[in-house]
Amino acid sequence: MSLGEFDLIKRYFQQSALSGNPIGKNTNVVIGIGDDCAILDVPDGYQLAVTTDSLVSGVHFFEDVCAFRLGYKSLAVNLSDLAAMGAEPKWVSLAITLPRVNEQWLSEFSRGFFELANKHNIILIGGDTTKGPLSITVSAKGIVPRNKALLRSGAMLGDFICVSGTLGDGALGLASKLEQVQLTHNDAFLDALELTEPRNELGVLLAEYASSCIDISDGLLQDLGHIVDSSHCGATIQCEKLPLSTAMKQEIRNNTITLEQAFKYALTGGDDYELLFTISKQQYQQLILQHDTIAITVIGEIIEHNSPKIHLTNNSEVISRQFSGWDHFK
Amino acid sequence: MSLGEFDLIKRYFQQSALSGNPIGKNTNVVIGIGDDCAILDVPDGYQLAVTTDSLVSGVHFFEDVCAFRLGYKSLAVNLSDLAAMGAEPKWVSLAITLPRVNEQWLSEFSRGFFELANKHNIILIGGDTTKGPLSITVSAKGIVPRNKALLRSGAMLGDFICVSGTLGDGALGLASKLEQVQLTHNDAFLDALELTEPRNELGVLLAEYASSCIDISDGLLQDLGHIVDSSHCGATIQCEKLPLSTAMKQEIRNNTITLEQAFKYALTGGDDYELLFTISKQQYQQLILQHDTIAITVIGEIIEHNSPKIHLTNNSEVISRQFSGWDHFK
Repeated sequence: MSLGEFDLIKRYFQQSALSGNPIGKNTNVVIGIGDDCAILDVPDGYQLAVTTDSLVSGVHFFEDVCAFRLGYKSLAVNLSDLAAMGAEPKWVSLAITLPRVNEQWLSEFSRGFFELANKHNIILIGGDTTKGPLSITVSAKGIVPRNKALLRSGAMLGDFICVSGTLGDGALGLASKLEQVQLTHNDAFLDALELTEPRNELGVLLAEYASSCIDISDGLLQDLGHIVDSSHCGATIQCEKLPLSTAMKQEIRNNTITLEQAFKYALTGGDDYELLFTISKQQYQQLILQHDTIAITVIGEIIEHNSPKIHLTNNSEVISRQFSGWDHFK
Repeated sequence: MSLGEFDLIKRYFQQSALSGNPIGKNTNVVIGIGDDCAILDVPDGYQLAVTTDSLVSGVHFFEDVCAFRLGYKSLAVNLSDLAAMGAEPKWVSLAITLPRVNEQWLSEFSRGFFELANKHNIILIGGDTTKGPLSITVSAKGIVPRNKALLRSGAMLGDFICVSGTLGDGALGLASKLEQVQLTHNDAFLDALELTEPRNELGVLLAEYASSCIDISDGLLQDLGHIVDSSHCGATIQCEKLPLSTAMKQEIRNNTITLEQAFKYALTGGDDYELLFTISKQQYQQLILQHDTIAITVIGEIIEHNSPKIHLTNNSEVISRQFSGWDHFK
């Protein structure tokens, strides 16, 4: 059975909460799906944060990717950008280009998308459904208290460099899918790659403490490069401090990967979607005093601008190897 | 020469006005391109209007389309959605998927995009550049005074039905490109198809007068169908009142198309991007009294809900023929 464009949108993407108008007050949605534009209320004292990311078949995901995971991840990567600014996610637009109507695929895709959207109380406010090679463009919007957004440009000399969570698992999952490595246990790494947990709660918290922030989408070194460039400073990273997951350490112990490979995934792998931020030592102390279980790790320090702009050491030995991150057209 | 993703974005899409930070006050852009998100100020007393549209190669445009015109149109169709809500356009995000780096193409595309953006003082606030089959997703944002947005649902019994400009030229341009018709003069119709003039000034004005509004992107009848459905009413359209361009009338006089064909293009052709709105007779009188040169035409009236929901007449004779608009998956 072939469905028309409008039926498609209604059936799979119009959340039941959106059928009435006006919509519940907490969502700040005045008009949702079903008119030429969505109309939204940005609360007094807040600014709007906007990000857009495209996921293209064969570039950002495998053509045979599970639709549920694709729906989930296409939102997750955008929420991660909001987290990096310290913004609370509120609304999202979704443009899907599909080669043909496949209701099972759409049903699974929307289930994955809303699994994450509902968790963060995010409202789908509109979008577009078109015919063509499979690609997904998501534009997520959030709110941040006036002049409190976390920028890349705020790092100061002497600040700690910190990351949330653990690093390199997504990149190792990708390497495993590409059969570049043979792992003992695949699943944790594939989950890290495809079911990324965006750090929005932490991002909102960091807006009160951090001096700069970015999410790690293109690899720690490349993304730290954006912070040091924007902040006109340098950085030193102590590799022995890089937080590795239990699963990653198990693979090292099993000799399926070396410690050096683990560092490489942690330093240059994309798809971590952890927050990389700088914070003054005083603010760091306050943060961990007041938040007992916060999963962050100090991995280095902001230093004066120098060449190379990022110094890597391992147990105090300088690592000279040049790492670089992911760049679509290079 | 191959450029990296970030160089690409910088070279072609970072307007010179965005290099500084903070950006000029009138743009309400706090942070533009170059961080994880853009940060925007919605002025007090205003709401945010958001729309997203994708243009896919081979579906929305021919693969050999002039890049300048594609850049222009990808923004124009989004501005038209803002116009339909009575919103003033302010900001835009642009996601481009490109099979390969082609600097001349990018240069022309961005020239077309900014030709229209600069005309409306719109700031590009971010986006994404990825590798893959050519497609463009634009998300435009505007502002509208609180609770003044023009909805599809506000049409009232006895309201006039009006359109801006003239109808059917874009559809005739498409028919000509597809070699379905042989025209005397192609250029006016191709310009109507590719260099659409979004009606943003009129939209902002209509927010003070109209009862409902939509832009004609899928054909007058289909888009009027959205208004009557949302407003729970019916409509009658007098075909002899449909505004046809001088160029269209010339083609009829030259017998390259019939009057019936002209009606069909005007009633069902997509790509007009004119505003279709309803307005009470009193408000209509006020509007034309106070705005001398406004290019709008009364083409019908809102009636009670009935079957068929839209009655077509020509010189008082009922036209029974079923027309329908464009639906991507049907």
